[in-house]
Amino acid sequence: MFNLLSRREFLGGLGALTVGVLLSNLVREGEAKVKKAEPWPYVKIDPKKAGELAYNAWFEVYCAQATATGIMELLADKVGEPWASFPIHALKFGMGGMLGWGMTCGSIVTASLVMGLVLPKETVNDMILDIVEWYAETSLPTFVPDKPKFVKDLPKTVANSPLCHISVGKWMKTANKAFNSPERRDRCARVAASVAYRTVQLLNAWKDGTYKPTNTWNGPAAVGIPAQQNCNECHGTNIPTAPKS
Amino acid sequence: MFNLLSRREFLGGLGALTVGVLLSNLVREGEAKVKKAEPWPYVKIDPKKAGELAYNAWFEVYCAQATATGIMELLADKVGEPWASFPIHALKFGMGGMLGWGMTCGSIVTASLVMGLVLPKETVNDMILDIVEWYAETSLPTFVPDKPKFVKDLPKTVANSPLCHISVGKWMKTANKAFNSPERRDRCARVAASVAYRTVQLLNAWKDGTYKPTNTWNGPAAVGIPAQQNCNECHGTNIPTAPKS
Repeated sequence: MFNLLSRREFLGGLGALTVGVLLSNLVREGEAKVKKAEPWPYVKIDPKKAGELAYNAWFEVYCAQATATGIMELLADKVGEPWASFPIHALKFGMGGMLGWGMTCGSIVTASLVMGLVLPKETVNDMILDIVEWYAETSLPTFVPDKPKFVKDLPKTVANSPLCHISVGKWMKTANKAFNSPERRDRCARVAASVAYRTVQLLNAWKDGTYKPTNTWNGPAAVGIPAQQNCNECHGTNIPTAPKS
Repeated sequence: MFNLLSRREFLGGLGALTVGVLLSNLVREGEAKVKKAEPWPYVKIDPKKAGELAYNAWFEVYCAQATATGIMELLADKVGEPWASFPIHALKFGMGGMLGWGMTCGSIVTASLVMGLVLPKETVNDMILDIVEWYAETSLPTFVPDKPKFVKDLPKTVANSPLCHISVGKWMKTANKAFNSPERRDRCARVAASVAYRTVQLLNAWKDGTYKPTNTWNGPAAVGIPAQQNCNECHGTNIPTAPKS
């Protein structure tokens, strides 16, 4: 119908200024459709599809952006805005635990961002803590892609940590493969996919009303400082005591 | 002018379907004003103002969201969209190195997100690596708020790490203060402000065309795995060798 009425006819009929003000009101309305403080809309998506997308994206964009791609692209397709406009490339920095510093696995960072955008206040911390603890305690990768890029079977390892350095390092030791080997690359692509899959599972359960938190670790409460659960792995037997108030 | 012409008159004059299609076209146009792959617009802002905002926000929302607030709120004021609609509360999860796990300092995570949103491909990694290395090597906090919440003077420490656990732990040891002490809270608020201040300084320099990368550390190149620069601090003298390809 819009094509039947040219912009010139439309403007001519109403007066340019009226339409100008109207345009700006409408655009502002469009921008504010999802309010800043409102959770971003979530609909159930297929965890297997999210995993496949993440796995295949990894070889271009690495862990953080790959996990975000797996989830956000499906939501952009099914929901549209604000997912469709979010610049997923801005999340690439999470790779290698922050561009090679080996800190938080980038997949965990972007899975947490998605949860932060979607979930209400009373659920968000629990589900993020769940995925962090799941990552640390699970024999990874859990995801098996339909079409593996390099190898069919890969060793799996439990990191006991959500840190890239420890997760990758323990796997490299078990597999006896270098960081730049095809096997290690395939492994990290599958880890990114595993996190995307698990994140979607948790969010779908929440959407169904069946989500139940499972996390057990609270660093500050347990040891008086933000910390992992396995102090001696870095400190050996010489574990310092946090000052008490 | 819009007020002089009621919605009913407007619809009556043109036909509801025409207007409906027009509306949807305009809203879509509004949403797409900043394209997904385009950097988000940046104008120079005042680093001191960003620091003050971050410092004061910390006591409500903690490090990750505080640093994001300091920078994003100023950009929302000066630039508008897409900053104005971004739900900063979704970034709270970075606190305590991911809700108490002591991993990457949350301020670094959100400073990196801002850089990821703003900077072109050829600059983004360098500036993120700069802020990570600066955080690790600088005696923190550098920021002194106009109105300290708790104490005027605080000890400063060099973490030699961008990890929350190590940054906070070394400070707690030097200050001999508990995690839940007013001093530690004030210290972390100032660290969030320091990172906001430094991030704005770097982005302003880039905007002026005077930004020069300073980072020197590349974990995978140096030690064959994503890693910090001080292996022996966790490994002691028993530093494993990464498998070679």
